[in-house]
Amino acid sequence: MRDTISLSHGNGGYHMRTLIRDMFSRKFGTSLAMDYDSAVLTVSERIAVTTDTFTVKPLFFNGGDIGKLAVCGTVNDLVVSGAHPNYLTCALVIEEGFSIAELGRIIDSMASEAKANDVSIVTGDTKVVPKHEADGIFINTTGIGVFNDAPSRGVMKEGDAIIVTGDIGRHGAAILAHRECHRLSTTLASDAASLLPLMNVLSPFRNSIRVMHDPTRGGLAQTIHEFITASGTGVTLESDAIPIAEPVRGICELFGFDALYLACEGRAVMAVDADAADEIVSSLRKHPLGREAARIGTATPEKKLLMAMPYGVRRQIEELGETPLPRIC
Amino acid sequence: MRDTISLSHGNGGYHMRTLIRDMFSRKFGTSLAMDYDSAVLTVSERIAVTTDTFTVKPLFFNGGDIGKLAVCGTVNDLVVSGAHPNYLTCALVIEEGFSIAELGRIIDSMASEAKANDVSIVTGDTKVVPKHEADGIFINTTGIGVFNDAPSRGVMKEGDAIIVTGDIGRHGAAILAHRECHRLSTTLASDAASLLPLMNVLSPFRNSIRVMHDPTRGGLAQTIHEFITASGTGVTLESDAIPIAEPVRGICELFGFDALYLACEGRAVMAVDADAADEIVSSLRKHPLGREAARIGTATPEKKLLMAMPYGVRRQIEELGETPLPRIC
Repeated sequence: MRDTISLSHGNGGYHMRTLIRDMFSRKFGTSLAMDYDSAVLTVSERIAVTTDTFTVKPLFFNGGDIGKLAVCGTVNDLVVSGAHPNYLTCALVIEEGFSIAELGRIIDSMASEAKANDVSIVTGDTKVVPKHEADGIFINTTGIGVFNDAPSRGVMKEGDAIIVTGDIGRHGAAILAHRECHRLSTTLASDAASLLPLMNVLSPFRNSIRVMHDPTRGGLAQTIHEFITASGTGVTLESDAIPIAEPVRGICELFGFDALYLACEGRAVMAVDADAADEIVSSLRKHPLGREAARIGTATPEKKLLMAMPYGVRRQIEELGETPLPRIC
Repeated sequence: MRDTISLSHGNGGYHMRTLIRDMFSRKFGTSLAMDYDSAVLTVSERIAVTTDTFTVKPLFFNGGDIGKLAVCGTVNDLVVSGAHPNYLTCALVIEEGFSIAELGRIIDSMASEAKANDVSIVTGDTKVVPKHEADGIFINTTGIGVFNDAPSRGVMKEGDAIIVTGDIGRHGAAILAHRECHRLSTTLASDAASLLPLMNVLSPFRNSIRVMHDPTRGGLAQTIHEFITASGTGVTLESDAIPIAEPVRGICELFGFDALYLACEGRAVMAVDADAADEIVSSLRKHPLGREAARIGTATPEKKLLMAMPYGVRRQIEELGETPLPRIC
């Protein structure tokens, strides 16, 4: 096999067929045959479908890589919607000249995460574009999940508690740190992870959980703004209650970012019936992925996102506007 | 609204939400809300799923644009698998600086094709990458279809007739002509079109149709090679019988391409029970999309793709190897 991807790997011919058979099908453990255009799947009558294209740069970072993100990110979007993830598609756009060894590492990551989450990668597409017409590789995964119970499509209600499953902003800070690694030394790792294991913890409380979301692009702040937009209520957060790891605080101070807007890739934020909040936090903290879970705020009548600071000060947290931090996920 | 796409249109914040609401949701006629990660769909227990990323360049060409392709291409992949297309996802990767007016035209095309095919675009994703890190726009569509009957997963059998629904190589030739338009003048248009209308014509013959495929990348030749790989038989084509439009022949002669390998985006090729071949061709020709339908060859014991030429000559048609024609679809 060659060292680098060439245009012929995306032309529908012999080299593409060989790449699919020898790398993708073999590593994914499914028959991504080129002789059928579609995969035929058995599902339930109600399914959840989500799609995401991953453009993260750098491709490999502390805590993961674009392949791991491409699986976990889409799995998480299904999970927070209350669905059980079953299938993924995988569509690649690869720049001519891309290292086949690196492609193999990325596909290995995808295969490993898919296996860990018991999802099958069932069909795909491979496009190769000339050099400089795409930067490296972009990966689209579309996920299909089934519902064990009726899909949960609630909205936040006044008085609800806001809970986050762990410390925030890690992924965004880790990517930023990696890009600046010539100027600083850190072992800060992305929190990229599947939320599927936490769903077993949360399952007994499903009737108390109004809405859940994974705070990726735009971070915790933007996700809560989405809760606010969809409901008639606002939120007041307690600044002391929001878990932020010290290295993340450090990166934010150094580069002038607000952790509230930095992406998380292994966290969920939810609005829950306040009566169940303590028990939910307690249950989450018993799980390795939920050790830093915390109640961080309350849904309020005033339709704004506010942060309660020390000394009785409250500051308004705006929706994310401009940002100089592209290709985070 | 601004004139061009900026990084903030992909950051998960206010500008992205506005773009989704004011352009995508409005034009697609569905609520692509940002407050839910997944769409909840009603389907049958068996579904067909296919995915494709469209990287065609130029974005706008005689006979269509990337938006039309992105819908028709994925609809066609479902249709040739025997499924009825219901839903699409739409994931965009857009280069910073892309014209918002052009984006609107592309989305209009997608909306128009989706409506014509009665498919809903139910969820999506928007990523913006910095200038020069993606060339223009790439569109991934993942399609979900349902089966009215049992999915057809046959293979070609010895003695089968090979039928194509129209003249070949138009799309590839039209793209090539457009790229060279400073050197030649032509009105050659892509054949980009949905195959859904032809399926009603073919429906009475479903038990006679072993396998069907749309000959996109790699054209007719590569598609027939896929039939050969999946079955135990070869194919001999009749050169006189293969419909190729004069402008396509001209483009091929001028630029040294073989129409057999040029993409079609509105054609199907199928292997059918030879006893039904004449009736299938006759029925196709009654439909505007099938006027040039033709029986072009036969499945043979010898596991090769051969072309019967005049004077008793037979030449072997190889699988597509290298190609200098990227970003065709």
